[in-house]
Amino acid sequence: MEIHAVGFIGLGMMGKPMAHNLLKAGFSLVVHNRSRAAVDELVSAGASDGRSPKGVAQRADVIITCLPDSPDVRSVMEGPDGILAGISAGKIIMDMSTISPAVTRELAEKAARLGADMLDAPVSGGDVGARAGTLAIMVGGRREALERAMPVLNALGKTIAHMGDSGAGQITKACNQLVTYVTLEAVSEALVLAAKAGLEPAQVREVLLGGFGHSRVLELHGGLIIDSNMRPGWDLRQAIKDTRIVVETGWEYGSPMPAASVVCEVLRTTGYASGEVI
Amino acid sequence: MEIHAVGFIGLGMMGKPMAHNLLKAGFSLVVHNRSRAAVDELVSAGASDGRSPKGVAQRADVIITCLPDSPDVRSVMEGPDGILAGISAGKIIMDMSTISPAVTRELAEKAARLGADMLDAPVSGGDVGARAGTLAIMVGGRREALERAMPVLNALGKTIAHMGDSGAGQITKACNQLVTYVTLEAVSEALVLAAKAGLEPAQVREVLLGGFGHSRVLELHGGLIIDSNMRPGWDLRQAIKDTRIVVETGWEYGSPMPAASVVCEVLRTTGYASGEVI
Repeated sequence: MEIHAVGFIGLGMMGKPMAHNLLKAGFSLVVHNRSRAAVDELVSAGASDGRSPKGVAQRADVIITCLPDSPDVRSVMEGPDGILAGISAGKIIMDMSTISPAVTRELAEKAARLGADMLDAPVSGGDVGARAGTLAIMVGGRREALERAMPVLNALGKTIAHMGDSGAGQITKACNQLVTYVTLEAVSEALVLAAKAGLEPAQVREVLLGGFGHSRVLELHGGLIIDSNMRPGWDLRQAIKDTRIVVETGWEYGSPMPAASVVCEVLRTTGYASGEVI
Repeated sequence: MEIHAVGFIGLGMMGKPMAHNLLKAGFSLVVHNRSRAAVDELVSAGASDGRSPKGVAQRADVIITCLPDSPDVRSVMEGPDGILAGISAGKIIMDMSTISPAVTRELAEKAARLGADMLDAPVSGGDVGARAGTLAIMVGGRREALERAMPVLNALGKTIAHMGDSGAGQITKACNQLVTYVTLEAVSEALVLAAKAGLEPAQVREVLLGGFGHSRVLELHGGLIIDSNMRPGWDLRQAIKDTRIVVETGWEYGSPMPAASVVCEVLRTTGYASGEVI
């Protein structure tokens, strides 16, 4: 089945530039978003307003969701105005949010009962990659559905990896977030110790980059820490959610998470202590 | 003062190849080691037997120690047969062990009262770097002493960085071990999760190497984990000691160590559980 129209639900920091890239690639685009402004912007650029997740699902062949957390994806999928209420056999739901692998599999089963595919396709590369169309996309689900969706994915990302059945994309993203956040915690602990002990953190970073301590996080985020660049590149709330998914997935598969769980707790404590995340 | 003879105390996995490199570089070498075999090997290669740490200190201009832990360095420094009993003004003690920065500073003060310098000069690069003479060396202590010792250091390592006053080399090494061990724990947790969830860990590693999860540890040690290469490259006892130093140094400087302390506890638990480290 050829793809005529693409649906996009969730026009946030990631979703909005991705939706623009689909328009630029020539897809007919139907959008929906909780707040109005982003819908108006996309409609001005040539998209049409799906009015509800159900409306988007009725009009599009591939329906993309890009939302903050598992409950958000569940709420646009289910209920009388949800995607599942508007979907039909042969259509593909592609969830590009970072959510729980368990919730992904549950929703994919519901889609399958209606004859539709649901791919989990979380991304990495941040808002920079979203704008440039250079995201890395980790996909779980049936290979046939992925192959059909490839023209859409190619408009959004550079590296598209099929990791396995439903949930495998989210598991891979969880592994990515685990390694990234724990490495960031390690780099932070080391640079703070260096500074408190009277050393020059920039010089310590240089030495560590020359050995086994080398990482992209030490290179990039270590540099930002040293420059006291406090401009947030992402959200504490997202970091807490991501590490929570890691720890919960560890419980699901009987895989211990000593470092990931302590980093989750550090982030959570930071959130509560600063009053930013309640 | 020109350097005629170099002393070497501690001819272990690291020390022995380093001592051989000093002979190859043309230094007159005086050695001491707790067990006899390594002394015999170096004597056959042209070194002379100092018979005790005191004997080495009496005969050498630069006295290198390369030992497992803080108490070992303390015991070759102090007592009637110790380095400090044989040292005299103008000589340089260079401790290349990885030990507590606090113990380093205390011993350096004792050496200073006798008119001698003590540099802390821990290394990174493992036994491979020790054999090849390509170690990275992180130095704390007086710059004048380091400059005098440079010909010796150049025979042992490739990158020599002066990090600050006494203890600064050990602080830098602690930062290096912190980042390396915590990253290794993160990589381990991620690859075990991937395997338990039915994914191909090698494929997950590839995807992570393409993003913020990239690190030398994921590249090298991640590859060893996937290949089930269980040949130890170092010692659990050393890993426990290194992370203990990190956590204790964090307490000394008021620098919190949530991830480093949990990794220290993971290593310690592994040691007790396996009966390898009591």
